[in-house]
Order: sequence, then structure tokens, then C-alpha cells
Amino acid sequence: MDLENYKKIIQKFADERNWEQYHTPKNLVMALSGEVGELNECFQWLNDDDIEDVKNSPEKLIPIEHEIADVFIYLIRIANKMGIDVEDAVYKKMELNRLKYPAESNQGVVNKT
Amino acid sequence: MDLENYKKIIQKFADERNWEQYHTPKNLVMALSGEVGELNECFQWLNDDDIEDVKNSPEKLIPIEHEIADVFIYLIRIANKMGIDVEDAVYKKMELNRLKYPAESNQGVVNKT
Amino acid sequence: MDLENYKKIIQKFADERNWEQYHTPKNLVMALSGEVGELNECFQWLNDDDIEDVKNSPEKLIPIEHEIADVFIYLIRIANKMGIDVEDAVYKKMELNRLKYPAESNQGVVNKT
Amino acid sequence: MDLENYKKIIQKFADERNWEQYHTPKNLVMALSGEVGELNECFQWLNDDDIEDVKNSPEKLIPIEHEIADVFIYLIRIANKMGIDVEDAVYKKMELNRLKYPAESNQGVVNKT
Repeated sequence: MDLENYKKIIQKFADERNWEQYHTPKNLVMALSGEVGELNECFQWLNDDDIEDVKNSPEKLIPIEHEIADVFIYLIRIANKMGIDVEDAVYKKMELNRLKYPAESNQGVVNKT
Repeated sequence: MDLENYKKIIQKFADERNWEQYHTPKNLVMALSGEVGELNECFQWLNDDDIEDVKNSPEKLIPIEHEIADVFIYLIRIANKMGIDVEDAVYKKMELNRLKYPAESNQGVVNKT
Repeated sequence: MDLENYKKIIQKFADERNWEQYHTPKNLVMALSGEVGELNECFQWLNDDDIEDVKNSPEKLIPIEHEIADVFIYLIRIANKMGIDVEDAVYKKMELNRLKYPAESNQGVVNKT
Repeated sequence: MDLENYKKIIQKFADERNWEQYHTPKNLVMALSGEVGELNECFQWLNDDDIEDVKNSPEKLIPIEHEIADVFIYLIRIANKMGIDVEDAVYKKMELNRLKYPAESNQGVVNKT
């Protein structure tokens, strides 16, 4: 399914509940921040072994799936309200990233400052 | 383009730079939080009129497009590292949301507590 | 009570539960992000009138008090684990802010980009 | 210095720049989220050895000190705008935490779900 379809489904969900009035860009950015906070809570006390264990357990993965979905939904919604085409934005940003971090000169090097 | 394709492009970008070693789930959740912080910074002092003005200016929209792309990229990457299918996760979460907030009984009502 | 005292009380709380092992700087930054997410959730759907109403209701203020306390506690804890003196850090940052934003030339002007 | 003093200094800084108009609770929560995002960026790619190295380097600690100060400043400011006494809020929350997580039954146990 492409991103245009998600946009429509999420828009329809808000319309059917008359939630448009709450979905200002600022409110939605705050809601996104809330969901990212919950995603942090899924991981905060886990070490690498714990995470491997979660990854191998369909049941333990459920809360993480829920938070990833929530972040995705609010992100698509913010883009929609701002008139931004996410596919186009990602394409352009990946192009910029390729210029900023050429593969040859960034072997194993990330910006740590 | 569907989500499976984004996953592959983003994976390839990391592989070509030998960044796999940094892309643990926890590191990626922190990077996601960083990008969401930057998205907040785009909006924090703007009022509704300012935001309408940004929305109508292709130039002023650019930083917001960049942050939305960055959030999207890290989110897809986290899902990939955890073995989560984002399309499936969103589909299931929307189903849960429809049950939790039936359209009939949630007309204009959001949870404010 | 000065900040040094908070540091000691919070350290004691962790020590008494043998939580030191979980309180790495990265884990604590994730926990801080989680609490800030919850603070966002307290405000995300409220308009100015709603917030004034919350402000005037001791009962409705309680969840916000809890989240502010949680953010404060984790922030003090992170500083402690990194050997940072918060009082000193705030003093120096305020000095920098005074230089960066002189009162005369920043009357009602904030950086909106 | 106690928290009441920080409140006054931070209030004075905003007043001298006529920034009160921007400092609504929601705007300040977004600004706080932005600073927490920057704190995440300081840590996201560091491993435990890197962090120990940062901790032992006054120069490398500076950006972290700045972000901790910024988070502290906005947190005090939000509490001020909501009429919340941070010292009282922290005191009460620590009491609740002691009840919720008794030291005897929480030896080395944190909530990982």
C-alpha cells in the first residue's frame, strides 16, 4: 500500500469522529511526541539480550508494534495537514543524505558530536 | 511506493556506510526522539496564522519536510531491526482504534485526561 | 532545598532498590523522553481555555504535577551520572543566553525558523 | 539555590525580552521536547566506553551541560506558568514512588513491560 492510501484512511478515521477540530499541526506534533515517548518506555530498561528476547516473542512485540503504528499514523497526519507529500520528502531527504554522507568517506563513521 | 521498498532503500543506505553497528534498536529510538525534537522546534513558537503562512510557502516548508522525512526514515529502520511489518502493524492498530473509539459515540470527543 | 539535596535523595532512592544497574545515562535519557512524552499527552488536545481551567483545578493539575516531577527527577539523575553540576550548568547557560539574545535587540522577537 | 529562585531568574529573563506572549504552556512543552531531543542527539551513537570518555572530558561535556540546563529552564518555566510548585510536586511524587516501589520487594526489579 502506498503512502497516499494511508493518508486517506487516517483522514477518514478523523472525519468520521469529527476530530478535525483537534488536529491542528501543533496538537498533532504533541501527540506524536507522546507516542514516541511511549516507544521509548518500551525500550528504556532493556539490554541487548532483553531486546533480542522481545524480538523473538510475537507477544512481547505487540506493544512495540502498537507504538510504531501510532507514530506512523500521527506522522502521516501531520504531513497531510501541512500539505506535505511524504514520499517526495523522503526521496529528497535521502538524496541530501547521500550527498552529505558519501558512502566512500563515511565507512563506519557517524557524527558523535 | 510501498513500505517494503522504503525498508530496503534505508537498509541499503546504512549497509553502504557500514552503519549497521550503530543501528541498535535503542540507538535508533534515541535518534528518532532527536528528530521529533527537531520537528517540535519547527512549530514551537508559531501561532495558527504563522503555520498557515508556512503551509503556503514552499520555501518555509522545507525544514518541516526534512524533519518529517527523518522521523519516517528512523521509524522504518526501527521496525526493520525489530522484525516488525509496519503495514501490518498500522492495519491492526487502526482496527483496534475503531473498536476503542466507535464513530457513533465519539463525535467530537477526545480523551482530554 | 537546593539541587545538591535532590541529587542525594534521588540517588538514595535508586540505591535502596538496587536500580543503579539500570541507570546508565542512555537508559535515563530514554526514561526522561518517556516522561516528557507523558507531559505532552497532558496538553495535546487542550486549547487555551481548557488549560486555564486545568490551572484553576487542583485535582486536574495532579497528573501534570506528576509528570513535571518525573522529568525533574530523571534530569537530576542524568546530571548526577554524568558528573554535571546542574546549578553551575544553568548559571552558565543563562549567561550564554543573555549574550545570544540581548534584551534590547530581542524585544518580542523569537527565532521562528 | 532553591527552585523558587530559578523561577524568578527565568521569569525575569523572559520579561526583559517581552517573550511572555510566546510562553504559553503548550509552546513551552514543545520547546522542552525540542531540548530533550537535543539531549538524545548527544547520546544516540555513543556506547558505554564513549560515554565514560565524555564524562572525563570537561570539553566534551559542554554540549550535554547546555542541553541539561535548557531542559531544566523550560521545565521550571512550564511549572511557573501552570502555578505548580516543583519542590512540592517532587516531594509528593517521591512519596508515591516509595509506596509504589517498596525497597524490600523491588530489589533490582524494574518494570520492563
